[in-house]
Amino acid sequence: MKIKDIGEQGLLKKLKSFCPHDIIGDDAAVLSIDPQQQLVVTTDVLVDKIHFSQTTTPPDSVGWRAIAANLSDLAAMGASPVGIVIGLSLPGNLPVDWVEQLYQGMSNLLREYNTPIVGGDICRSEVTTVSITALGQVDPDHIIKRSTAQPGDVIITTGYHGMSRGGLELLLNPTVASNLDRDIQNRLIKAHQYPIPRLDLIPHLWEIMDTHTITGMDSSDGLGDAVIQICAMSGVGAQIQLSCLPCVSIISQWFSSEQALNWVLYGGEDFELVLCLAEKTAKKLVEIIGQEAKIIGKIVEEKSVILIDGDQQQALNLTKGFQHFS
Amino acid sequence: MKIKDIGEQGLLKKLKSFCPHDIIGDDAAVLSIDPQQQLVVTTDVLVDKIHFSQTTTPPDSVGWRAIAANLSDLAAMGASPVGIVIGLSLPGNLPVDWVEQLYQGMSNLLREYNTPIVGGDICRSEVTTVSITALGQVDPDHIIKRSTAQPGDVIITTGYHGMSRGGLELLLNPTVASNLDRDIQNRLIKAHQYPIPRLDLIPHLWEIMDTHTITGMDSSDGLGDAVIQICAMSGVGAQIQLSCLPCVSIISQWFSSEQALNWVLYGGEDFELVLCLAEKTAKKLVEIIGQEAKIIGKIVEEKSVILIDGDQQQALNLTKGFQHFS
Repeated sequence: MKIKDIGEQGLLKKLKSFCPHDIIGDDAAVLSIDPQQQLVVTTDVLVDKIHFSQTTTPPDSVGWRAIAANLSDLAAMGASPVGIVIGLSLPGNLPVDWVEQLYQGMSNLLREYNTPIVGGDICRSEVTTVSITALGQVDPDHIIKRSTAQPGDVIITTGYHGMSRGGLELLLNPTVASNLDRDIQNRLIKAHQYPIPRLDLIPHLWEIMDTHTITGMDSSDGLGDAVIQICAMSGVGAQIQLSCLPCVSIISQWFSSEQALNWVLYGGEDFELVLCLAEKTAKKLVEIIGQEAKIIGKIVEEKSVILIDGDQQQALNLTKGFQHFS
Repeated sequence: MKIKDIGEQGLLKKLKSFCPHDIIGDDAAVLSIDPQQQLVVTTDVLVDKIHFSQTTTPPDSVGWRAIAANLSDLAAMGASPVGIVIGLSLPGNLPVDWVEQLYQGMSNLLREYNTPIVGGDICRSEVTTVSITALGQVDPDHIIKRSTAQPGDVIITTGYHGMSRGGLELLLNPTVASNLDRDIQNRLIKAHQYPIPRLDLIPHLWEIMDTHTITGMDSSDGLGDAVIQICAMSGVGAQIQLSCLPCVSIISQWFSSEQALNWVLYGGEDFELVLCLAEKTAKKLVEIIGQEAKIIGKIVEEKSVILIDGDQQQALNLTKGFQHFS
């Protein structure tokens, strides 16, 4: 059954179960924000064949990833989610089932955080486009900024990088994976299709921020991009130890070292956090998070971002990261 | 100059002046909501060739209309605007100038209400799509609902209807207008390209709501649609007096009576408010608003929505209103 067979009202009726507030249509939603907290809002637009494709992302994965990207933006600010608004542009000949699975994927991830879909809009277009706005709230003292990193801070990553890019590679070129263990393949593909935003860390970060500064952002546009952006906003530089990027050694078990390093630094969409804080506190945080977290370098006064490999150095190159319209 | 010539970062730099918060990119924005008030959120997606076109809407009008639609949704709830988030999908060969004018149009209307653009996302797509989310705030006692209309209430419209549809007709078929006064043409075209949401009425409605109930919604999907939706949500019916629709007599000076009635009831995009309230209070409100406002009928127990023309009656027909995917 296609969308054009049941029309706008028919589609809204089908999606009603995913939006108990009954406002997937044009109406406005009313939400309560904790009077002690500030509202945080973030938005992401995902376009068919650019951010997702039939080959690499089933519809529930498109929904999951769209939500993950927005919740990750909230986590990056230290905020907890309050509600989600969804704008959809859909071709009339898209199967209704595709849209239901999209919503199912969004709901599956949102359920983990008790976060409702509170509204949206649906209209016709030649290109499937999913536009998500996430609303969150944060105590003003717990807002994580990009601009407060200081020389002496160490840089930690909360998890592996390059995994999502590795999974994408397997989905695009299944033959490259013929010698790869099936479990490892599944793990990489899962990292690409069903990434987990790091909202789980927020209570720990709040606790640290009661007494210490944490600077940071998420790594949705790549680990390299995150470090460069933090340094630019804070007016500092960074030294990253290649040997400390745990993910490189992991990815390079399966792919070439050069490819591994490229994906780790520039692959993007791993939705981990990149945080800068005092070394002692950082070590405690890494211990709490577990073995996937690691101190990867330090903030320095000299304003360039350098990757150090033994006695060799190279500057991180943002143009290797994904850029739209390029 | 095309977007692909300057890339994503170049475009963001060009648009920076419209978003002092410096978060048109992927970041989240932080906003303060009055602790006494609730957050209201609404979203609208506009797609090239469906909601706007080169023939009928210059880029600044696309921006203006997108904002007007969302502010009108806030006004319909009794909310005042706090901030706007913009998601754009744009073809690489779109002129940069088009996007700047789009933002200029949005800014021109937002300036009237001191409402900032607080964030957004921009990405590449084959189809230009503008997705707007508006954030507002409202005192819980001042929320206007659709579900509280009661038999005995009268129905008022806050302004003319069918004007936007008339303007669209002039833009699509300039030859139909050859016998029309230039001033009148401009007025109709302005109603289509630069509609004014009725946020100006909100303080008056709040004052009334301190002691009386107001039920209502905006007429963005048509005056007929608004009355039908209010009746459905409130479990009541309505009688509309054709002779009381001031707009019909105005539009029919220039177009046929049948066309005029059709546009008034089903044209849509006039962004006025359709309100139900006790007759005495309604009369005072109409006086405050001025001659464009009018009592057009009343709420009744019998659940159908009837248009009365002398001794003739006909039921309003929602299928004549604009439906997506049909």
